[in-house]
Amino acid sequence: MAEAIRYDKTARQLKLLSQALDSGRLGPVRRLVNTLTPAEIGNLLESLPPGKREIVWGLVDPEDDGEVLVHVGEEVRESLLAEMDPDEIVAAVEDLDIDDLADLVEDLPDTVIDEVLKSMDRENRERLEQVLSYPEDSAGRLMNPDVITVRADVTVDVVLRYLRLRGEIPEHTDHLFVVSRRHQYLGRLSLAALLTHEPSTPINELIDEQPAIKVDASADEVARDFSDHDWVSAPVVDENNILLGRITVDDVVDIIRGQAEHQVLGMAGLDEDEDMFSPVPRAVKRRATWLGINLITAFLAASVIGRFEGTLEKIVALAVLMPIVASMGGNAGTQVLTLMVRGLALGQVGATNFRVLMRKELMVALLNGAIWGSVVGLAAWLWFGDPRISLVIGAALTINLFAAALAGVLVPLTLKRMNIDPALAGGVILTTVTDVIGFLSFLGLGTIVLLR
Amino acid sequence: MAEAIRYDKTARQLKLLSQALDSGRLGPVRRLVNTLTPAEIGNLLESLPPGKREIVWGLVDPEDDGEVLVHVGEEVRESLLAEMDPDEIVAAVEDLDIDDLADLVEDLPDTVIDEVLKSMDRENRERLEQVLSYPEDSAGRLMNPDVITVRADVTVDVVLRYLRLRGEIPEHTDHLFVVSRRHQYLGRLSLAALLTHEPSTPINELIDEQPAIKVDASADEVARDFSDHDWVSAPVVDENNILLGRITVDDVVDIIRGQAEHQVLGMAGLDEDEDMFSPVPRAVKRRATWLGINLITAFLAASVIGRFEGTLEKIVALAVLMPIVASMGGNAGTQVLTLMVRGLALGQVGATNFRVLMRKELMVALLNGAIWGSVVGLAAWLWFGDPRISLVIGAALTINLFAAALAGVLVPLTLKRMNIDPALAGGVILTTVTDVIGFLSFLGLGTIVLLR
Repeated sequence: MAEAIRYDKTARQLKLLSQALDSGRLGPVRRLVNTLTPAEIGNLLESLPPGKREIVWGLVDPEDDGEVLVHVGEEVRESLLAEMDPDEIVAAVEDLDIDDLADLVEDLPDTVIDEVLKSMDRENRERLEQVLSYPEDSAGRLMNPDVITVRADVTVDVVLRYLRLRGEIPEHTDHLFVVSRRHQYLGRLSLAALLTHEPSTPINELIDEQPAIKVDASADEVARDFSDHDWVSAPVVDENNILLGRITVDDVVDIIRGQAEHQVLGMAGLDEDEDMFSPVPRAVKRRATWLGINLITAFLAASVIGRFEGTLEKIVALAVLMPIVASMGGNAGTQVLTLMVRGLALGQVGATNFRVLMRKELMVALLNGAIWGSVVGLAAWLWFGDPRISLVIGAALTINLFAAALAGVLVPLTLKRMNIDPALAGGVILTTVTDVIGFLSFLGLGTIVLLR
Repeated sequence: MAEAIRYDKTARQLKLLSQALDSGRLGPVRRLVNTLTPAEIGNLLESLPPGKREIVWGLVDPEDDGEVLVHVGEEVRESLLAEMDPDEIVAAVEDLDIDDLADLVEDLPDTVIDEVLKSMDRENRERLEQVLSYPEDSAGRLMNPDVITVRADVTVDVVLRYLRLRGEIPEHTDHLFVVSRRHQYLGRLSLAALLTHEPSTPINELIDEQPAIKVDASADEVARDFSDHDWVSAPVVDENNILLGRITVDDVVDIIRGQAEHQVLGMAGLDEDEDMFSPVPRAVKRRATWLGINLITAFLAASVIGRFEGTLEKIVALAVLMPIVASMGGNAGTQVLTLMVRGLALGQVGATNFRVLMRKELMVALLNGAIWGSVVGLAAWLWFGDPRISLVIGAALTINLFAAALAGVLVPLTLKRMNIDPALAGGVILTTVTDVIGFLSFLGLGTIVLLR
């Protein structure tokens, strides 16, 4: 009798594995690892520090090696490939599906790629070359050319006999694709329809004219269509509507996970391929650019403050309070930016509605400015006993929240128009704006109101 | 012949729709809207400001109303429900799948819920009540009780005849579930196996003992299992292994999208249910908490600065440079925090490996401190012509990067142990730490080194 899965899985597997590794007996480790799916093994390998990772990798069933390589991030993949000799790599990858192989191929050493190509039959080699001819992150690269096609002019019975003869149906096949004599895509035929109709029914009557995905569609667009249409698999066609292959929902789940990681990590200037346990020099190098960019913007903000040295010397309270203005602007702006980035990613924000959005966000900023400006002003008055400081900080906060809303709407729109991912660069630019405007308005108003 | 999809779809649909709306002729709007899937209509409605949104909602085919309501965020859903009278709502939702209905039910007015329950037959009402008895975000709430089951002691032929008699197979059915006389789950039977085996084959020989999902598993765990196993559908069982229903991959795609949104928006203190066009007072209220929390932390940082008023009066250069130390610490710490949050979400970080991780991150911080401390020190020297300032800012930066790495590892681990989502609260706590340590170390060292 089949059993139910136990939770929390990964943490438990990791603990069991670590105990087994620490005990030094590799038999139990091997048995544990080989009860897992390749995706689970990949996840475990990513959780292991170098040293332990190599030991476990050596214990994985060679039959699973290829699939495991597909399921780990690029940096971890490199560390695993470094442990294998060329023959092992060829053996691991030669049985992979074409789309998975295409995904791996760029990380393989050139000599290994040649070996892999040589080990494939001509048909598969041509298929791989076709898939590789499409740009990364396009439908062409995601598709698997291995599809079952049928003709429209036969009956259910003929298809059933053909399937029995074939003996095997690729995973995630919920539909067969109906094609013309010239291999043009005509529509799809569900397995459910085959199973629920009389053997004499003509396929003609069962065709569902579901649109196909164009081979040059982006991975993001493919993911959107799968979730908008609840597809399990979908056909991919070229510009002449010739059926080239199909994309399946398991790959789409990976795309959506990848998009989410990319967005979250990208906002912190990280790369989704980063290995948690990458060597220190490598990690330092990876993060250097981001800290360098941040340093430049921090100096920009400091230079604004530097222009008010005379004021600060006389009224030190301004130095104490100025980070509040900058920080509130940064936070309020990030909220607007985040909503805009989501809207842009979903195609929900465009020329037709951004003015309405902007007006709303500016109104929200003014109201928040009134509320929080009063709170901060009152607190500053209590602290420093000078009502003029209240006035200055209240006004500066309102100005900065207004600037934050403006930047929160305009920065991502502008980046998007320049074809720069707003999720990556938006945050840095926005906080630079709110830092500069925050310090400038607060210290500027302070100079005018308090020094005259 | 089926056609290929055109891109970029949502933006194009939105533009067409806006043009049609602006022209004032509703016929074309209606025709356009009703070529779309419910998910696409939902996405479009979310992109429309109030006013236009109500017009388009009125033009949606009533048959799609229920599915559209399932596909929009909570705040937009409320605005759409407000436009419908109780009869319309009942008509819209009564034909929904049980899992979708369970998802909607809490947003419906009580009187409507009673009406809906009354309109259902007894079997469906009991099923809905069962689904609703499980906690939100659990497998029990995601499952659909409508499954096709077969017995192990029949042949392929019997199942084929049963399916033809049944005449319909629910969407996303790639497997039937084999159960015992007492409805215990025994394993699954793929449609592919039915299609490729001789009619005389006993089902016994075709059973795949795939584990089932427990009804109390969390939605996150369900999503993980689907992507680890590449499932299209999976059975849900209770503690006695009785088959209760099934979960399908389309819901899992929605869960994964939702997790991603939750994480990205949560980091900015936003709720994924927020309507882009929500009324201004509502938006102000929604964002008030976040700004209030930020204000408290900002005052905390300001109070640290306030303790050094005497120092700042004498050396104004410190006021100019202090935001640099705080900002670099905040950025470096956010990178560590983000990696940790991802690792925790994937179950990759735990008691067995966090020490290795911590050691690595502290080493990275020290190296980055040495590199960026020197750069900043040099720049400060050039700016203010005082080598002692270089020393102070270089040392303070290193201290703050070290503190940032420590907080980046420990804050999410601690939050997780306290059952608080580290993705939500982590950022605020981390930047509070780096602000306080940054100002304290810089101004403290400045007082010691420069004023003696």
